[in-house]
Amino acid sequence: MGITERQRMAAAEWYCCFDPELDALRWRAREAVHEHNTMPPAQRGNLGPALAALFARAAENVFIEAPFHCSYGMNISLGRRVYLNAGCTILDSGSVRIGEGSMLGPGVHIYCAEHHRDPEKRRAGMEIARPVTIGRDVWIGGGAIILGGATIGDGAIVGAGSVVTRDVAAGATVVGNPARPVGGS
Amino acid sequence: MGITERQRMAAAEWYCCFDPELDALRWRAREAVHEHNTMPPAQRGNLGPALAALFARAAENVFIEAPFHCSYGMNISLGRRVYLNAGCTILDSGSVRIGEGSMLGPGVHIYCAEHHRDPEKRRAGMEIARPVTIGRDVWIGGGAIILGGATIGDGAIVGAGSVVTRDVAAGATVVGNPARPVGGS
Amino acid sequence: MGITERQRMAAAEWYCCFDPELDALRWRAREAVHEHNTMPPAQRGNLGPALAALFARAAENVFIEAPFHCSYGMNISLGRRVYLNAGCTILDSGSVRIGEGSMLGPGVHIYCAEHHRDPEKRRAGMEIARPVTIGRDVWIGGGAIILGGATIGDGAIVGAGSVVTRDVAAGATVVGNPARPVGGS
Repeated sequence: MGITERQRMAAAEWYCCFDPELDALRWRAREAVHEHNTMPPAQRGNLGPALAALFARAAENVFIEAPFHCSYGMNISLGRRVYLNAGCTILDSGSVRIGEGSMLGPGVHIYCAEHHRDPEKRRAGMEIARPVTIGRDVWIGGGAIILGGATIGDGAIVGAGSVVTRDVAAGATVVGNPARPVGGS
Repeated sequence: MGITERQRMAAAEWYCCFDPELDALRWRAREAVHEHNTMPPAQRGNLGPALAALFARAAENVFIEAPFHCSYGMNISLGRRVYLNAGCTILDSGSVRIGEGSMLGPGVHIYCAEHHRDPEKRRAGMEIARPVTIGRDVWIGGGAIILGGATIGDGAIVGAGSVVTRDVAAGATVVGNPARPVGGS
Repeated sequence: MGITERQRMAAAEWYCCFDPELDALRWRAREAVHEHNTMPPAQRGNLGPALAALFARAAENVFIEAPFHCSYGMNISLGRRVYLNAGCTILDSGSVRIGEGSMLGPGVHIYCAEHHRDPEKRRAGMEIARPVTIGRDVWIGGGAIILGGATIGDGAIVGAGSVVTRDVAAGATVVGNPARPVGGS
């Protein structure tokens, strides 16, 4: 068939993370992240050249505080005025789209990557990637974790330290581990 | 009236974070944080010159491990022998006072800043700042998050990974997300 | 008796962390961590020379992403193919053993150190260290916290953002704060 591990990853199928092509892409991301995190702030500015070149897309007036971490970078798309505070971490084996005006507090983590639950297959490097989609004008409180497959609707609020394991409706506020709607069940 | 956004922030009123004066203060903090985090440890010592110049007050024998992050720094007051382990993050739009002998574990986050809950006003940069006051000889476990407005009494213990959303009584131990007194309701 | 604070720490007895020998060991770890975190990724490679020299043991094909933090380093033993993603933090006042093939997500924290619960003794620097043992092929999700004394069995899974306060059985999956078995009580 000629299908590559990178293609499997993009297709949300099980793939082997030990693949040389994926490994090279991760080393490229490490270099960009290192450059972003060690560059003097005034020189780096709002986004910085390393991440601008790495990301799939970063619209005008995106701001990425240092330190930042991502596994590939190439699957991250950021709308206008997206703001990521210090310490945000995105494992973007899957597509990560963050809509215009959304703000992530310090230390927000987004994990598209999921290892296999069978230890034998996990040992063999089997992973699957599920996308994360965050709408417009979303506020994600510091220290929150967003798991792969989650969609967060426009204008939603995720409380600090929450663990988001499922979709969040537009305009909703969710809190806790696992995150549940405020006032909901 | 001539009141500035910085004055509104200090008065715990709604203010616009896009203000040029506040923006300049945040860039100043970024430079100090960068210097602290990239300086060789033996040269930096316990506190380091960059944060010593930035903070409102740091009494004798304060120790700030790297990396550290703060948004302004100018609103942080630390008593004698305060210890912040690696990765602590303080969004000090409001006053943050930590009393003598208190210890913060790795990755403790303190957030004075709160965005507006109305997406329209959030988009316009509206924020409010509420102070955080931590007493003497408090132990805050690693990965805990303290939200604006919280006062933590002398000798209290906050469990690792807790999210503190309200006051903690002197001598109390709280755990969980949200944090609740151990043995309490 | 001639017993030192370092010996008390190793024996899981109460010790004083202000001890000069322990202080020197922590400065040594700070230098190694700083070197690891500031070295260009291609030069550092999978493990890097600073941590390789610091750890008690790192078997073949260990990978430690930057940034990493530990308090001593000398009490950390890693089996073959252990992988620590970015931002992992290990307070290894006690022994920390991680078995072959285990993977830690971003920002996983392990705390062997515990301060005294009595504020007077805490102020005097009294701490106790309890070991953490992680088996083979364990998957610890990002942002999880593992407290001292916990043993995590082979093939177990710890959900992202969990706080592990007690032992986890081999093959079990635990989630939440505090972490509890999925489907269990």
